[in-house]
Amino acid sequence: MNGAESLVKTLLAGGVDTCFANPGTSEMHFVASLDRHPDMRCVPCLFEGGATGAADGWYRMRGDIAATLLHLGPGLANGLANLHNARKAGSGVLNVVGDHTEWHLAHESPLRGDLEGVSRAVSHWTRVSPDAPSVAPDGAEAIRAARSGNGRIATLVLRAHAAWEDAPGPAPVAPPPAPRRPDPAVVTAAARALRRPGAALMIDGPALHGDLAETAGRVAAKTGCRLIAPFLVSRIARGAGAVRIERERYAVDENVALLADVEHMVLCGAGRPVTFFSYPGKPSLPEPPGATMLDLCAPDMDIGWTLRALADETGATGAEPARMPLDTPAPPAGPMSLEKVGAALAALLPENAIVVDESITASRPLNVPTDTARRADWMYCTGGAIGLGLPCATGAALARPDRKTVALTGDGSAMYTLQSLWTMARENLGVLTIVFANRGYQILRGELANVDVPDYGPNAARMFDV
Amino acid sequence: MNGAESLVKTLLAGGVDTCFANPGTSEMHFVASLDRHPDMRCVPCLFEGGATGAADGWYRMRGDIAATLLHLGPGLANGLANLHNARKAGSGVLNVVGDHTEWHLAHESPLRGDLEGVSRAVSHWTRVSPDAPSVAPDGAEAIRAARSGNGRIATLVLRAHAAWEDAPGPAPVAPPPAPRRPDPAVVTAAARALRRPGAALMIDGPALHGDLAETAGRVAAKTGCRLIAPFLVSRIARGAGAVRIERERYAVDENVALLADVEHMVLCGAGRPVTFFSYPGKPSLPEPPGATMLDLCAPDMDIGWTLRALADETGATGAEPARMPLDTPAPPAGPMSLEKVGAALAALLPENAIVVDESITASRPLNVPTDTARRADWMYCTGGAIGLGLPCATGAALARPDRKTVALTGDGSAMYTLQSLWTMARENLGVLTIVFANRGYQILRGELANVDVPDYGPNAARMFDV
Repeated sequence: MNGAESLVKTLLAGGVDTCFANPGTSEMHFVASLDRHPDMRCVPCLFEGGATGAADGWYRMRGDIAATLLHLGPGLANGLANLHNARKAGSGVLNVVGDHTEWHLAHESPLRGDLEGVSRAVSHWTRVSPDAPSVAPDGAEAIRAARSGNGRIATLVLRAHAAWEDAPGPAPVAPPPAPRRPDPAVVTAAARALRRPGAALMIDGPALHGDLAETAGRVAAKTGCRLIAPFLVSRIARGAGAVRIERERYAVDENVALLADVEHMVLCGAGRPVTFFSYPGKPSLPEPPGATMLDLCAPDMDIGWTLRALADETGATGAEPARMPLDTPAPPAGPMSLEKVGAALAALLPENAIVVDESITASRPLNVPTDTARRADWMYCTGGAIGLGLPCATGAALARPDRKTVALTGDGSAMYTLQSLWTMARENLGVLTIVFANRGYQILRGELANVDVPDYGPNAARMFDV
Repeated sequence: MNGAESLVKTLLAGGVDTCFANPGTSEMHFVASLDRHPDMRCVPCLFEGGATGAADGWYRMRGDIAATLLHLGPGLANGLANLHNARKAGSGVLNVVGDHTEWHLAHESPLRGDLEGVSRAVSHWTRVSPDAPSVAPDGAEAIRAARSGNGRIATLVLRAHAAWEDAPGPAPVAPPPAPRRPDPAVVTAAARALRRPGAALMIDGPALHGDLAETAGRVAAKTGCRLIAPFLVSRIARGAGAVRIERERYAVDENVALLADVEHMVLCGAGRPVTFFSYPGKPSLPEPPGATMLDLCAPDMDIGWTLRALADETGATGAEPARMPLDTPAPPAGPMSLEKVGAALAALLPENAIVVDESITASRPLNVPTDTARRADWMYCTGGAIGLGLPCATGAALARPDRKTVALTGDGSAMYTLQSLWTMARENLGVLTIVFANRGYQILRGELANVDVPDYGPNAARMFDV
């Protein structure tokens, strides 16, 4: 077999059976080997950002990695913005990027570029596989790297000769290293802090849905602390029956107001709160200046173990979390407005749906009424790089074909990765896409005021009135 | 004035009066300052690749730089593929990329990323302006860097506080360093080589149009050498009256055949010939193994001086270049075919048009008949990263509103940067766009055979039958 086939076999043996692909010439041996491995589902994407965003959506719903197949430096570059979003989501993604042969790279051919530089700008782990016998072991290491630390971006560069020359066979894939756990003394300190007045437990990542959200909710119920999530999260269970979790706000003043009473903050799977942008005269850190901050468990540590230890330490194991009630509005009538779209969504969203929300300036009127809609998993544009919505919905729908997926997207962001509509159709996915076409660069109008530029004239207005 | 305004003033004083912009919050002070500077033409682009590709097209037609305005690391990443094409075209581009304030970067906010790493992967020159007083002098340096070496990629990172804090004023822009010239002894050696049987003068960059193409043509006429250009070039004058310049081929075998008789090759403004991809058992270098290679003038050296010195040395100053004749076909009738579209283009293309050719697999039937169509400037996808066509045509049409621009694009590549159609409409540009919708991933079908995979089954076919 050749190097490419040894990689496909390694992926399959390592539990990676889905590949979002935008291949070119240098990946043809990988593509050719697919015919001998029908158990590898290769999903064509007509733009690289569609592939990387779909791998992100896949991870968010499966909690395990898919691969992407991309074409040289420019191909990886086209997928970079959604890898940025995936990285901020804490999603594991394994990129396989084809490159020229080693001897071809000695010359200045059109597609030659700084592929490793492009990769390092976003990947936690980058390796160039030098020859065919290295491809399988490097692939196994890449899988392990992508699964490490609760999900990382790993990029394997597959040079053309390493793909087409003879290789001995697949390599075994080792499990990722066990994530670090906090010192028990820190758990004890966190439990003590959470019992104080003005305490908040800030959670993120896997703590926002499923069993871990339940555990976090028990801790909050028992200690009386608030349970808060960042504004943009990878995946959060929302709606009737979901554990009540507050979410930070986009606007700095609103976020500062939200956290005004916080005296003690414990971070569990979450980074330190920070505003989206910085503005003249406004803080980057939204919590009150005197608040204590306890970093219990970093996002790449063992969040499950930590939450369970915290529940034990606080005696919360039998507590009942506060939950959201069911309160759906009547389906609205009359002329369309954002509020009515939000009410319609709240009225009609089916139980257990997956919602990818990249509606940006339209987001609030959609999120408020759906707080008490039927329970669903909601996913957000974690890195703020637009163009995530449609690809992420594609990957999520492939990962969970048993559930209905809804993509909410702005018109500007939809255009960034519009090719994902083709993949949805091609793969016959159950995705409902709603495009919020405000026909303007709406967010900038607000942001201009935020940076102390209240008025603008015709030359600046040409940037917003699109 | 603030740092942003000091930059706008520096750009204008330095002769940069056009900015292709996809701004976000961190660039709002730059946008606000536009109202006080109506002589800065800021062209909104709804995708960053549209902005960088337009700046490339602008440079190809003007021979001088435009600016782009982009938003943090993900914004620059979205523009990276077309910056790759610009770099391969030898185009100068000045990117201004907004970033968070220094103190905001201390925290893990959503859009924070390795902006400098993204930039360094494609830029010749990258600088982070640390504070407002540095912005104008750094901007002046950036302009100089972008104009150096016949055109380079320069990226200035403008942190938000450096944009909004007080700055003393604009900075003077120094001319770029004079490009290096070859040693006269090398010119003499080149002249000697070109008089030999089997000699070829390989030219690229500014040598492919205007006065320098005339000079190169005289040298060829006088010495009897062949005049050859790479397959993908930044801009070449083609059609009736243009100097006869052969072009390399995409297919390796055809390219090897084209160069089979070359015994002595002189490179002037051109890199060493290299095939687009490498394939098993085929050479990366297309010239015959025994051919001598003389590197007369690298692409970043003084190509004009060198060609004129070569004309003097060969006594070619008064020679008459071989030129292409006018031979336009009758406008075709009957059912559509690629050949008929090529004939229609050859019949109808107006004198002095600008043609951006990203038609990829459709390219050959369009290029053969237009060899003898009316004279036009043709531009190609120099870096092989698709999505150049529409943005490049946008920038070219803005640079030369007096000429008709035609964009030839594949359906797959058009989707990469489709938002450029909006900019063309918004700016009321005279661009005719022809999309070659073959509804397949056509090039890969051929490439699979090229890499010795003659047959493929249903799982691989899913990648091509799109």
